[in-house]
Amino acid sequence: MRIYADNAATTKMSQRAIQAMLPYLDQIYGNPSSLHTEGQQAAEALANARARIAARLGCSPREITFTSGGSEADNQAILSAAKMGERKGKKHIISTAFEHHAVLHTLQALEKQGFEVTLLDVHEDGMVSAQQVEQAIRPDTCLVTVMYANNEVGSVQPIAEIGRVCRQAGVIFHTDAVQAVGHLPVHVERDNVDMLSLSGHKFHGPKGIGALYVRRGIALQNLIYGGAQERGKRAGTENIPAAVGMAEALDEAWEGMEEHMRHLVMMRERLIEGLSQIPHCALNGHRDQRLPGNVSFCFEGIEGESLLLLLDDKGIAASSGSACTSGSLDPSHVLLALGRPHEVAHGSLRLSLSAENTMEEVEYMIAAITEVVGYLRSISPVWRDLELGKKEFVLK
Amino acid sequence: MRIYADNAATTKMSQRAIQAMLPYLDQIYGNPSSLHTEGQQAAEALANARARIAARLGCSPREITFTSGGSEADNQAILSAAKMGERKGKKHIISTAFEHHAVLHTLQALEKQGFEVTLLDVHEDGMVSAQQVEQAIRPDTCLVTVMYANNEVGSVQPIAEIGRVCRQAGVIFHTDAVQAVGHLPVHVERDNVDMLSLSGHKFHGPKGIGALYVRRGIALQNLIYGGAQERGKRAGTENIPAAVGMAEALDEAWEGMEEHMRHLVMMRERLIEGLSQIPHCALNGHRDQRLPGNVSFCFEGIEGESLLLLLDDKGIAASSGSACTSGSLDPSHVLLALGRPHEVAHGSLRLSLSAENTMEEVEYMIAAITEVVGYLRSISPVWRDLELGKKEFVLK
Repeated sequence: MRIYADNAATTKMSQRAIQAMLPYLDQIYGNPSSLHTEGQQAAEALANARARIAARLGCSPREITFTSGGSEADNQAILSAAKMGERKGKKHIISTAFEHHAVLHTLQALEKQGFEVTLLDVHEDGMVSAQQVEQAIRPDTCLVTVMYANNEVGSVQPIAEIGRVCRQAGVIFHTDAVQAVGHLPVHVERDNVDMLSLSGHKFHGPKGIGALYVRRGIALQNLIYGGAQERGKRAGTENIPAAVGMAEALDEAWEGMEEHMRHLVMMRERLIEGLSQIPHCALNGHRDQRLPGNVSFCFEGIEGESLLLLLDDKGIAASSGSACTSGSLDPSHVLLALGRPHEVAHGSLRLSLSAENTMEEVEYMIAAITEVVGYLRSISPVWRDLELGKKEFVLK
Repeated sequence: MRIYADNAATTKMSQRAIQAMLPYLDQIYGNPSSLHTEGQQAAEALANARARIAARLGCSPREITFTSGGSEADNQAILSAAKMGERKGKKHIISTAFEHHAVLHTLQALEKQGFEVTLLDVHEDGMVSAQQVEQAIRPDTCLVTVMYANNEVGSVQPIAEIGRVCRQAGVIFHTDAVQAVGHLPVHVERDNVDMLSLSGHKFHGPKGIGALYVRRGIALQNLIYGGAQERGKRAGTENIPAAVGMAEALDEAWEGMEEHMRHLVMMRERLIEGLSQIPHCALNGHRDQRLPGNVSFCFEGIEGESLLLLLDDKGIAASSGSACTSGSLDPSHVLLALGRPHEVAHGSLRLSLSAENTMEEVEYMIAAITEVVGYLRSISPVWRDLELGKKEFVLK
């Protein structure tokens, strides 16, 4: 038996999305830029996919640009706002310390080009506030970028409030909504966002496709130059099968969202309740303002990597934090941003559920994690020191 | 009946590639950065795809970086060489006037950043020579980028010779081989190239995936920042299904290459022979040094767009030039680079065949094109003027 509890890293494609995508591999396979029937059929499919995605997000199809994924969308959004700002002499950007690396590393690249970046502190419950943003905005601020929901600790940010503050100040607001779209009822108008990134494979759509919502009036800057695809703002033959698959997955996610949320929250709450029984652990992120399927804990005195490997042996696919940094020995920058000390941040576990998970799996996971944490502590010299009082427990 | 003769724009995915790809949509769907079994299976699939592609191109797997397609690969290659050059105070780049827009527009962006670009003239037969490159190289040249085979007129460039010249001068040589890989026995060592771009959907692989070969020792510059995927040089969750599909399509193309080339050349030669019977037309590109499946003509006195639409009515999917610019009213920059006057360049037709096309289709196309060109001329005021001697024929 395998239990897949790493849906924040990537998801299994849904059958509906696969079936929607298949005809575009070898039947309607034309290049949408071509004038002939095959090309026009492809162009129609692309327009249709764009319209469906726009309808879900509450925007116009013209405001959707397809990208190769969430990272590209984040990069292009930030670069575009920065270039717009630069032309007006505004080179200050506000973000947070616990953004995804697709945002943080893009900001670092801009710092080398003379931009100044303010990274807001994150409260220990995994939240940033609209007030923090408001206080950080300066006359030369050209962009605020705050993620919709954190990929590691799952906390959902007050996006609409932050958006309101930005709008009042006349500053472009981008949100990396890669973890939110398909899971929460994201809506660009209600959420007051100007730019929003999403990624197909985070909601049971295909890998290799994402989209960037850009409010009309904001000039996109090319990241990839070439042909005139995507109104000249993103060159490269359009990935029709993936665009169609993503649109289908998004529709499916939206149609099942309420039901899925109920099921996910029930599983999440039981996991939090069950894992909280383990001594000296702590839930990461906000108790309630969190993604329906996200459970993130720190367990004192153990190494997250060993925990993952033993859980894998027991059939559970989980993560210590972000998949993107799993190879790294550094503790998660997100957990550090939340104020977890290094030694505690190392003992992290993220379970990210999909609607396919069951309560039976949840009970199995609680038992398995409890057992494995206990075993790892029994062989941990750090834990022995903690128990002997040679070191102080950080988590009560 | 439909005849698809626009394979330079995009191809139908092969059944082998589709079948290879499918398991990675909903069975082995993990994120290769994850430590668990699902992640490691995905990582293995990715490594395997990379190794297969590297083996075909004659390089090491470490020298292959996956991208979202050919345009991204071109952009990243050129940007990387430019940044390397800039650090050494070398800001001169050599290319040709008939490159793909993914190259030309990237070069234009670099010109705005203070780079100087020399675009070599293209001989009227669609060729540039190693001597031209040699003469253009300066002490401050940091990059030569010349396409392997032109996407519109199909002429195959003397890549190995150009590569030799670049190597002797110590200048990085990139080639956009998007139209060549899978169709010609491209080999990075034999061809003396340092960087090479390819695209899956041009050889019956999936859309949304490409790769960049980068010789060891050349530092790639990120186009997309974020996670540490692709050794930190291309962020974003890897598109495993597409990488596997591309590797399979490349293997398939390579296995069938000799046989396909024979079949394609036979069809190409019959098309050239048949269409040459039409008065006042000319073959574009080199008579022999051309892609096996490429046929490109200019017909005097007609509009390429009308020709395409009438051919489409007769079941033939063809192109006037590049799909990427089909929406544009400007004549092809490639045909202009070959010295075709505007009025002749407007009357262009490209047929790009795949191994699935048949001699029967070829005969049908010759008859249909002859008929449609005749009809369009019969209603063309330009043609009347030519016939009445009010204007001079350009094409004999």
